[in-house]
Amino acid sequence: MTKKLGMQSFYFAAPPTIVSSAAVVGPLEGAGPLKGKFDKAYEGVDADEDSYEKAERRMIMDACYIALKKINTPPENVEYFLAGDLLNQIISAEFAALQLAIPFLGIYGACSTAVEGLILGSVLIDGGFGNLVLAACSSHYNTAERQYRFPNEYGTQHKPVCQHTVTGAGAGVLATGGLGPVVTHATVGKVIDMACTDALNMGAAMAPAAADTINRHLLDLGRTADDYDLILTGDLGSVGYELTLQELKDTYKSDIKAKYQDCGLLIYDRATQPEVMSGGSGCACSATVFYSDIYQRLMTGKLKRIMLVGTGALMSPTSLQQGENIPCIAHAISVEMR
Amino acid sequence: MTKKLGMQSFYFAAPPTIVSSAAVVGPLEGAGPLKGKFDKAYEGVDADEDSYEKAERRMIMDACYIALKKINTPPENVEYFLAGDLLNQIISAEFAALQLAIPFLGIYGACSTAVEGLILGSVLIDGGFGNLVLAACSSHYNTAERQYRFPNEYGTQHKPVCQHTVTGAGAGVLATGGLGPVVTHATVGKVIDMACTDALNMGAAMAPAAADTINRHLLDLGRTADDYDLILTGDLGSVGYELTLQELKDTYKSDIKAKYQDCGLLIYDRATQPEVMSGGSGCACSATVFYSDIYQRLMTGKLKRIMLVGTGALMSPTSLQQGENIPCIAHAISVEMR
Repeated sequence: MTKKLGMQSFYFAAPPTIVSSAAVVGPLEGAGPLKGKFDKAYEGVDADEDSYEKAERRMIMDACYIALKKINTPPENVEYFLAGDLLNQIISAEFAALQLAIPFLGIYGACSTAVEGLILGSVLIDGGFGNLVLAACSSHYNTAERQYRFPNEYGTQHKPVCQHTVTGAGAGVLATGGLGPVVTHATVGKVIDMACTDALNMGAAMAPAAADTINRHLLDLGRTADDYDLILTGDLGSVGYELTLQELKDTYKSDIKAKYQDCGLLIYDRATQPEVMSGGSGCACSATVFYSDIYQRLMTGKLKRIMLVGTGALMSPTSLQQGENIPCIAHAISVEMR
Repeated sequence: MTKKLGMQSFYFAAPPTIVSSAAVVGPLEGAGPLKGKFDKAYEGVDADEDSYEKAERRMIMDACYIALKKINTPPENVEYFLAGDLLNQIISAEFAALQLAIPFLGIYGACSTAVEGLILGSVLIDGGFGNLVLAACSSHYNTAERQYRFPNEYGTQHKPVCQHTVTGAGAGVLATGGLGPVVTHATVGKVIDMACTDALNMGAAMAPAAADTINRHLLDLGRTADDYDLILTGDLGSVGYELTLQELKDTYKSDIKAKYQDCGLLIYDRATQPEVMSGGSGCACSATVFYSDIYQRLMTGKLKRIMLVGTGALMSPTSLQQGENIPCIAHAISVEMR
């Protein structure tokens, strides 16, 4: 009685429901095209905390508490907390887990973490190991720039292919039953290396992994782009978006194009917010877009079925300094409103 | 049909079998009390690679390939690779995942990662999502010292309460059926903060989490220490070992004492290897001890049932520099030979 489909995918026998979600963002994201769709937009990137790391932690905690409050559920009723972020040793997630006091499983998939959490949370529920799981992730422009590239105070110029790490956090509550969109299928990605070494062009690095997982999800499930209202990648930006389209299987390419969007292009208006360069990135990019506008469109029936593809660049400053490429990964889930 | 037991534990309806395992270690570990029990002991900590990070990566890959070779299984037959390590952005695990080309889910639980991998791997199998999962983790004294404390070249003196990060890696293969010990139960830990701020005394920081999870595992399962031949914590060393005993529930304390050991005390001989100070630590500490000597003792019937408790200190150099405490976590599994 295996639930496996094809090489890398599986279905959920009793698809877990995303019964609640929350997305909180920084001021730049709050002023973008999705203005008004988020649960909270902080006035400053410091969220009134005394370090950017503490601000990021505040955001992931706020997202979790807001998501739980919407369903009047205290943290002590939640059975597992699956979370991760981009900071070394995922400290944002860990300190949130300390505060929430929910049994915690730390995950790391770089910017694919939101989807990894939804996959493993759904596995726990569908496998019979629990009825209520909280999945969350966060990222922050200032903490990410300092850790991965240069502190902002240095005033380093960005190239046009650069992306802007989304400041914010997203949280979703998975349950057996209840009202909301359900997670029906998942595809676990393989790590793919196309010899990209430019940490300032992550979209290009991630595109082959995104395309590979989209191709694989459709193949394993025996579906085509026609089965979806929306195919949404996490944080490829304009460069990665175009490259992903090129890398798709020829049989899917033209059908997908009409359905395909990227969270990194939805969250900012590149015309009026030129500082974001080629678009958004970071764990919070897919999380804040999915848990706000997309979730609302699913709830109101404007979207019936989507494929959400979390994309992550698997590198550290140390691996780059030692001359390594940037291998990437992408995980996909099918989410539908029944 | 929930598999939950008590507040934080669950059982596996068809307990997954650990059908193969491998442990590889550095020269210090290879010369310790478990000499000859490991699958490989490298002559140098560099494992003939040109950086310590690459050496660690070599070790985790070697452990995976050896574990798979023992059951004549090529990587392409494995459905999921669950792995993590202590390096920023878990790059050892990620580059191993690239090489192995197995669908990858990155995990991070600091030194509890070995047990987190066995829990989630067993969840995937028992939930019907696959039949063959590889779980692995690694740590390396030189990469860990450089990242968390000081590069060894500085010659910084260690305090007697310090522990020595184990250089090595462990891998286990989980399957539905087959010969070997089975994972019957799991307890997912909560993050616990006892206001420890000393990164040179991790055993003390982790002890409360270890005791909490041991207490919880026994309570949730309705068991006592009499039900186990061995209760084994991951990497507490001599200081954490004594503190854990003190923190156990009074009703369990005396019974547990006779059964209780710590991998950090088993892997080194502190009398003849005084440089390890209070004992071993790191992801590889529990992994290399469990996947070598303990696994062999289970296979030969010398141990019938054990509780393995992975212990992890959840901090980063940044969180310490910003004055945060070191919150900790512990996950437990029951493993038995039937």
